[in-house]
Amino acid sequence: MRYCLAGVLAAALAAAVSPASADDLMKAAKEIFQPIPSLVPAVKDNAVTHEKVELGKLLFFDPRMSASEIISCNTCHNLGTGGVDAGPTSVGHGWQKGPRRAPTVYNAVFNVAQFWDGRAADLKAQAKGPVQATVEMNATPEHVVKTLTSMPDYVALFRKAFPGENEPVSFDNFAKAVEAFEATLITPASPFDQYLEGDANALSAEQKDGLKLFIDKGCSNCHSGVNVGGGGYFPFGVVEKPGADILPAGDKGRFNVSKTASDEYVFRAAPLRNVALRAPYFHSGQVWSLKQAVGVMGEAQLGARLTDKEEDAIVAFLGSLTGQLPQIDYPILPVRTDATPLPTLAK
Amino acid sequence: MRYCLAGVLAAALAAAVSPASADDLMKAAKEIFQPIPSLVPAVKDNAVTHEKVELGKLLFFDPRMSASEIISCNTCHNLGTGGVDAGPTSVGHGWQKGPRRAPTVYNAVFNVAQFWDGRAADLKAQAKGPVQATVEMNATPEHVVKTLTSMPDYVALFRKAFPGENEPVSFDNFAKAVEAFEATLITPASPFDQYLEGDANALSAEQKDGLKLFIDKGCSNCHSGVNVGGGGYFPFGVVEKPGADILPAGDKGRFNVSKTASDEYVFRAAPLRNVALRAPYFHSGQVWSLKQAVGVMGEAQLGARLTDKEEDAIVAFLGSLTGQLPQIDYPILPVRTDATPLPTLAK
Repeated sequence: MRYCLAGVLAAALAAAVSPASADDLMKAAKEIFQPIPSLVPAVKDNAVTHEKVELGKLLFFDPRMSASEIISCNTCHNLGTGGVDAGPTSVGHGWQKGPRRAPTVYNAVFNVAQFWDGRAADLKAQAKGPVQATVEMNATPEHVVKTLTSMPDYVALFRKAFPGENEPVSFDNFAKAVEAFEATLITPASPFDQYLEGDANALSAEQKDGLKLFIDKGCSNCHSGVNVGGGGYFPFGVVEKPGADILPAGDKGRFNVSKTASDEYVFRAAPLRNVALRAPYFHSGQVWSLKQAVGVMGEAQLGARLTDKEEDAIVAFLGSLTGQLPQIDYPILPVRTDATPLPTLAK
Repeated sequence: MRYCLAGVLAAALAAAVSPASADDLMKAAKEIFQPIPSLVPAVKDNAVTHEKVELGKLLFFDPRMSASEIISCNTCHNLGTGGVDAGPTSVGHGWQKGPRRAPTVYNAVFNVAQFWDGRAADLKAQAKGPVQATVEMNATPEHVVKTLTSMPDYVALFRKAFPGENEPVSFDNFAKAVEAFEATLITPASPFDQYLEGDANALSAEQKDGLKLFIDKGCSNCHSGVNVGGGGYFPFGVVEKPGADILPAGDKGRFNVSKTASDEYVFRAAPLRNVALRAPYFHSGQVWSLKQAVGVMGEAQLGARLTDKEEDAIVAFLGSLTGQLPQIDYPILPVRTDATPLPTLAK
């Protein structure tokens, strides 16, 4: 188990680590959070080479990886809108609604695991999911490999990205290339990062008030680390279960992965980097206002009814988590050939 | 009427302008075609300013212009795949299938009018269509204006792009900005352009054979000018109607616009720039092989059964029409606010 309920509650009730002065606040923040590095991080079992990143970018934007050939990774993880789609949950093959809000791909490499329930250990495991999910891209590994193999430009790029391999074009390597590209989707240099690096003026007075509240009230007990969240699993509704619109009874979260009773309604703490770009909120995507989401969290997780001013301050702090998004050239994709599988729209 | 059936047939049957020597071929080509200019062309009643182009790029990629907020202009006119989608026809709101193949936005500014039936005089008129079409983006001008007005970054960009106007954020100005961006989507410097500019070595021997056939057989009677097509309206099936799969009886083309009997099954000649990037072909999108499409055209329009070698040569020539696609930074879009209309998935 990666969470400690008693700890969460203790922090919420006792506000044990209340930073008193401005220096103390920065010191406390540095103990709880880490800045986003300015360099692309290493990824387990998958060297992030330039060739893989370039290939992965094409794959990420290529709708022909889906059965309909009109849905790409970027459709639901739109890099122009914070790495997510419009919500509340995603729309996939056949206009089917997915069960949960699309998580952002930005900084996802820093999460402990992928998906709201952490069912994928890393991004290469994650990348294989939506491609095959019938309510998302509804494709098969065979469709993906056949499509890629049909285009000589893709074959050449896989050879370059996976040199010396006998079968460079494979579903595994598709996922590795996507992971390598996604590892580059990091957003450093937010005001909060600058603050963590020692610039006391990088945050406004209100943002500092918000940061202090975020620590004092106990938010940072779950939302900590590089991604201000994304590091562990916690029950949604520690103190008070939110309404069924926000926490639908049918989605038991991590329980579906672990089959452990104590994991019912447990989710990975949402990573809060760039959260201001990514309404609507929660796995159900039912709350469109960040301020309202802060209020819900206060009541559900901390048993605290935040004042209007407190909510505003926390929202201001969360705004300081918006970093510099990488500039991405929209890729010109390899050209289909007569051997490329045709799109299938049937559900 | 912009077409002359007698002329088409005469050219097909008599091959009157057969260029004999290599010099003659280039001279003949220069009389029939013009190169894509390397500079963005002027647009009627809409100065193409840097501010409009930048704004138009955001709008073109912004899915929130649709009712579902997941379909953008780029969904069906994907700049990564030749300015079109996977086909055969587009999939829009509610997974509905559109009636015709998406035309490319690349070089569309050089067409005589927009849509397969020319029902929009220019790109600013065209841009208003798909946004409102219930089978495409299913939005309203009110949705678009309310969405744009809800985001301060958009309001500022409209003010800059339309200085001095009382109501810079309007559906008309949305369309003008999109048109300005689309005017930049030109693809100069193809091998054929280099040939037209005097470089005899820019085309291979087979491509020159194809060009000669393209002129001799009469293809260039309809497919001429800057866009090697897109300049006038012609009946599909001049000599022999293609099968109902390729030319569905229910779609009478320009007749629906003009209500003139002679316009039945008349369409704007397809512009052939970058045609090799844009399978499937025809307004019905039912032919996936360019070689097969050339064969269909020979029989339907010219009454000519082309040999395998002739088809290959013409396909090789058409390959020389692939130009240099502009490099486009994928835009980071303005952030939605609590005032932004919510997505609607209902049909």
